[in-house]
Amino acid sequence: MRVKFEHLESIRSLALVGATGLVGQEFLSLLTEHHIAIPQLKLLASKNSEGATVEYGEGEAQVEVLNENSFDGVDAAFFTVPSDITAKYTPIAMKANCLVVDDSSVFRMQPEVPLIVPEVNGASLRAFEGLLVATPNCSTTPLVLALKPLADTYGIKRVVVSTYQSVSGAGRKAYEELSEQTASLLNGASFEPAVFPHQIAFNLLPQIGKVTENGDCDEESKVVAETRKILGLPDLKITATTVRVPTFCGHGLSVNVELEKDFTDEKEIREIFDKTAGLKVLDQPSMHIYPTNIECIGSDPAFVGRVRRDRSVRSGLNLWVIADNLRKGAALNALQIFDTIFNYRRMA
Amino acid sequence: MRVKFEHLESIRSLALVGATGLVGQEFLSLLTEHHIAIPQLKLLASKNSEGATVEYGEGEAQVEVLNENSFDGVDAAFFTVPSDITAKYTPIAMKANCLVVDDSSVFRMQPEVPLIVPEVNGASLRAFEGLLVATPNCSTTPLVLALKPLADTYGIKRVVVSTYQSVSGAGRKAYEELSEQTASLLNGASFEPAVFPHQIAFNLLPQIGKVTENGDCDEESKVVAETRKILGLPDLKITATTVRVPTFCGHGLSVNVELEKDFTDEKEIREIFDKTAGLKVLDQPSMHIYPTNIECIGSDPAFVGRVRRDRSVRSGLNLWVIADNLRKGAALNALQIFDTIFNYRRMA
Repeated sequence: MRVKFEHLESIRSLALVGATGLVGQEFLSLLTEHHIAIPQLKLLASKNSEGATVEYGEGEAQVEVLNENSFDGVDAAFFTVPSDITAKYTPIAMKANCLVVDDSSVFRMQPEVPLIVPEVNGASLRAFEGLLVATPNCSTTPLVLALKPLADTYGIKRVVVSTYQSVSGAGRKAYEELSEQTASLLNGASFEPAVFPHQIAFNLLPQIGKVTENGDCDEESKVVAETRKILGLPDLKITATTVRVPTFCGHGLSVNVELEKDFTDEKEIREIFDKTAGLKVLDQPSMHIYPTNIECIGSDPAFVGRVRRDRSVRSGLNLWVIADNLRKGAALNALQIFDTIFNYRRMA
Repeated sequence: MRVKFEHLESIRSLALVGATGLVGQEFLSLLTEHHIAIPQLKLLASKNSEGATVEYGEGEAQVEVLNENSFDGVDAAFFTVPSDITAKYTPIAMKANCLVVDDSSVFRMQPEVPLIVPEVNGASLRAFEGLLVATPNCSTTPLVLALKPLADTYGIKRVVVSTYQSVSGAGRKAYEELSEQTASLLNGASFEPAVFPHQIAFNLLPQIGKVTENGDCDEESKVVAETRKILGLPDLKITATTVRVPTFCGHGLSVNVELEKDFTDEKEIREIFDKTAGLKVLDQPSMHIYPTNIECIGSDPAFVGRVRRDRSVRSGLNLWVIADNLRKGAALNALQIFDTIFNYRRMA
């Protein structure tokens, strides 16, 4: 089930923008894990990280401060930085003819920017001649991996999704905040929430991101809009409730799907999922076999289990889906996008 | 919003069966908090707790071992023990003419046994002449509190619920397991899961209880069947996915409801909830005001927030509901049932 890269060796120079963040670190781990040798690898970060080093390969590597000349002569760049830095530096990179894969939400919904999960809609990059591709929100990616084969086989009438999102989705400081608050609580020490608006240790925060006009929070709007775009179903009926939970890594999703055409039984659905690239089925609940954060952390695929008919509606289906939000939810997906594009460029 | 008891003083002797458990402890805390003086309070537990003492009032009280004579001359008993002990001793209590409120799932679905959340269907106890009443599953209680006013005002077409359940719902040993595993992980020590089938610290377990014939787990079947019974809607279309999360106390629910008749706007729904006994609205998400475990722990009502129109369906509504599973989910609800019955008995 491990992803294989075949065309990354053609990248002579690659910039990682956000090298000190959790996703940046995961990106570097993947390069090491897959023995991908990039002749010129530029590790970039904002001024706050000046002088920092990051773990890479068997040692440490120096981080450079991002500037207006950072992309001169660079083939490809992966951006995983806050939206304001993304908005400022992606045009500079593109002007230098650098292919950008961006992990922020800045460009995802722009019609001319492909929003890609390679297993789902990577083929749409075949004729791509642009310089900017977006990778989806870390909750959207596992969702579309599970929905795509259902949409293709049965058609989808409506989706109701509730998420269980780990703190690493909110970055390194959020990760540290869960760790520190947990230790404080176990030690009876006091603390002040800093990254999250409330205590996150042993607590549930049923809102992620700012509230939008229609009452949804940002994360809910992203899941809805991005799912529609990636599946190519602009009118898909879908609603989301996004919740932050006190886990470090892995975003879980309770997914309820109403299909257009009925399925025979759960076995049929599991067989379809079994054949789906990027998905792994773990579904023997009577033996306590179902996907949890422990299974997904450090693994490539999105996991699916608890496949059950929902008898409250015709052709209803309940699923539990979970994926490593740093890996398939971000860094791995970005590398797969590069691999896909360089493959098509090679064939062109 | 605090519950008031008015008729508990007429209980001369009360047995608490399961005095050493988390729910038993909450029951005793409530008696103290409300200055309810029961002339004869019997604290009962199984043989495993022989010689144990429990916190009560300003000191400690001795626990007696449950036996076949425990209910002689006892007016009322609250059972909060495993199903096998419940099944054995409730007939003995009833034979002694003792009124039993039972927290287990043994009798809940028996047609002749009232299953009661007083704010929702307490009035059905008016003509009750039996000796056994059941209190619902700790996830069902907050759910029906939120659904009842919607069913009354608009009618309900379908419900999709996903739960975020704390470990205290699985008892004292589960509570300790989360605490110990968390400390072990922070200290880099190893551990073996004992109560839960997998690590629960910083992990999500998308299954609660055994798998039933149709693929649902026990907890999911309970939520579905009990909600139908309490709302008096035997054909209610409802599906549930129940997930254990690493929180100590408080069961959260992401609730999607399709109403029969449409509502004007979210404000209308909030106003209806505001007038509903047993519910408290916390819903100003732009100011990070929404219910979390911190708000609900030690509080009487179920909390509701994130009230949002779901545009994926006609008359759709998303809600976030959370309640203290030991309190309104168990001990408080049981005390309210006693209060309701003794009130009706007084009026009879």
